[in-house]
Amino acid sequence: MGVINLDHISANPLLPEVQEAMIKAIKENYGNPSSQHKLGEQAVEALESAREAVARLINCAVPKEIVFTSGGTESVNHAVKGLALANADKGKHLVTSNIEHKAVIRSLRRLKAMGFQVTSIPVDRHGRVNPEHVAKAVKDDTILVTIMHSNNEIGTIQPIEEITKITKEKKVLFHTDAVDSVGVMPIDVQELGVDALSFASNPFYGPTGVGGLYVRRGVNIWPLLDGGVQENNKRAGAENLIGIIGMGVAADLAVREMDSRLVHLKRLREKLLKELPDYIDEYIINGHPDYCLPNLVSMSLKYIEGESVMLMLDEDNIAVSTRSACASGSLRASHVLLSTGLEFADAQGTLVITFGVDNSEEDIIRFLTTLKETVKTLRDLSPLYKKTAQA
Amino acid sequence: MGVINLDHISANPLLPEVQEAMIKAIKENYGNPSSQHKLGEQAVEALESAREAVARLINCAVPKEIVFTSGGTESVNHAVKGLALANADKGKHLVTSNIEHKAVIRSLRRLKAMGFQVTSIPVDRHGRVNPEHVAKAVKDDTILVTIMHSNNEIGTIQPIEEITKITKEKKVLFHTDAVDSVGVMPIDVQELGVDALSFASNPFYGPTGVGGLYVRRGVNIWPLLDGGVQENNKRAGAENLIGIIGMGVAADLAVREMDSRLVHLKRLREKLLKELPDYIDEYIINGHPDYCLPNLVSMSLKYIEGESVMLMLDEDNIAVSTRSACASGSLRASHVLLSTGLEFADAQGTLVITFGVDNSEEDIIRFLTTLKETVKTLRDLSPLYKKTAQA
Repeated sequence: MGVINLDHISANPLLPEVQEAMIKAIKENYGNPSSQHKLGEQAVEALESAREAVARLINCAVPKEIVFTSGGTESVNHAVKGLALANADKGKHLVTSNIEHKAVIRSLRRLKAMGFQVTSIPVDRHGRVNPEHVAKAVKDDTILVTIMHSNNEIGTIQPIEEITKITKEKKVLFHTDAVDSVGVMPIDVQELGVDALSFASNPFYGPTGVGGLYVRRGVNIWPLLDGGVQENNKRAGAENLIGIIGMGVAADLAVREMDSRLVHLKRLREKLLKELPDYIDEYIINGHPDYCLPNLVSMSLKYIEGESVMLMLDEDNIAVSTRSACASGSLRASHVLLSTGLEFADAQGTLVITFGVDNSEEDIIRFLTTLKETVKTLRDLSPLYKKTAQA
Repeated sequence: MGVINLDHISANPLLPEVQEAMIKAIKENYGNPSSQHKLGEQAVEALESAREAVARLINCAVPKEIVFTSGGTESVNHAVKGLALANADKGKHLVTSNIEHKAVIRSLRRLKAMGFQVTSIPVDRHGRVNPEHVAKAVKDDTILVTIMHSNNEIGTIQPIEEITKITKEKKVLFHTDAVDSVGVMPIDVQELGVDALSFASNPFYGPTGVGGLYVRRGVNIWPLLDGGVQENNKRAGAENLIGIIGMGVAADLAVREMDSRLVHLKRLREKLLKELPDYIDEYIINGHPDYCLPNLVSMSLKYIEGESVMLMLDEDNIAVSTRSACASGSLRASHVLLSTGLEFADAQGTLVITFGVDNSEEDIIRFLTTLKETVKTLRDLSPLYKKTAQA
């Protein structure tokens, strides 16, 4: 029996059309888009056609506003460090939220070591930022607010439009880490009113190691990669053309299939949430009930560790995550869950389930059936559970 | 008739074995190496096996010393900025040469804007650095010397071993941009004695947009991409696994075929240099006659512009470069050629010919025949040539 992938947020499979386009690109052996001879021409066409497809995906009217990068992490580093360093003459204060991805947190930490100050604002129990808190946090020397579009652990979507009304009024730049939103749900950079927006290709079934950064025209930003004049002088280095071509095709498909994918994902999510009480008890569903990603369920299972559940499900060929793949390898509790007010023990009992187009309702049932056994086995072994049951 | 590629430095074709491995990786749909479940296991194996192959290519004894990047430009930015920023408490003075690639020059310019000082040392007429000049340039507050291994416009190879003797003695870090050397000629990081070395996959027929950075164990460096703990905490972000797999196979092939490739390249280079006087006159061969890349010939054609020659050769389906692809798009003369003492006009008349495993002696003859006609046509139109001929 094959592995059921309920950990799409760690790795989405490449769609057949994406595979096909990448294989074609490999066989065609394109040249360097920067070359001025024939061998470069096809490459330029392929590059710019991918840029147009990606621009359409986020309703960006000027494809030149898209910078191709090596993935979400580079996009975020480029945006946060590049905007801060390029605008440091106006001030050195930055605002963020308590539940950002490590790429944002660690980029900000780096900037702190370089003399910047950072204010991090709290979230409510659903993981949502209050725009009024942003308004209060912005000071005279604030140059940048960076708040994620959706959270990769609990799925909560932030009120970005309300926040950008504030940052526009206060003439402060706004960046959003939309890595887990772009291609998964409709994203419109013009409606959102952002100055910069980071995204990656894999969440919409393109290759990993490829991403993009939207930077609104006229916004002052330092490149992260200095060198040649590629990407309109915003990102030096020979392009990962094969990956970018894959991303372009994935973007095209995401635009065309967005509605049907949303219907499918919401059906799976609702089925899981509706059936769950029939299989297990004593759990908490994290994140916001309405403002949430369509493909994610975060559940905290009481008295046991998410890590153990994940490993036992893996034995049964079901892949789930305890939290973001980038943060794995440590047993500390997630800063995101703790920020929503979850108890430390409950945070450690958290599983993140993420669906994809390749999942079926049968997958949900097999997951629930296996989860029930797993939870029983682990709770029977749990001293905490026994103590609570005895009480 | 197909295009004869004599501009391999801009884009090398992917070898069939590399294509095959990448296509297999695309079809296998590997997971995320950071995942702790089954879907991540194959990915980890593929990643680490590529790392071992790449380590062998540069005789790096500890594969963990290799950080995968999105290409030569990222590697150079990571090394130059990361070493400078991580060691700024010891001093803020950096040393480089006058003929570095734009990735180094612009990274250093960025550091200057952040308060670092840079001393750039001259080269001789063959483009070589005198190690004594390095010794003189190093001051008490010098923390890093960065000098390229080979130059991408004139092919000159620097006396890196002699330079690292000095930097070791003076306890200063040394980085070399070896993007155009690794995989093209034997490179041994232990013999060279470098602290960091940048390279890319395409020069040895791997995909573009993939590269690596060797960082000797114990050397203090900041990541360029902050975030997750990938790449031994030195480079965050989900890996471009398909590209890295291609690079690994390309590295394996480069190790196995190094000797025969060198014989082939040297034969082509010697043939071109030997036959050239029978086809054209009044030209200069740039670079060092002995310490030079085996696959590169830089020639300055008097009285005409390299740009025009390149475009006319392109009409005849022959691809050459005027200088590095990364620097194209401007008509200024190359800083590298001017640094060797070449006249401005001669620098503008420069063609860079780079060979690959797919070139034959027939390609050389077709190039020479076409070049002869092209040069005649252009010189007949050149007022400068007429004036000189009349005199």
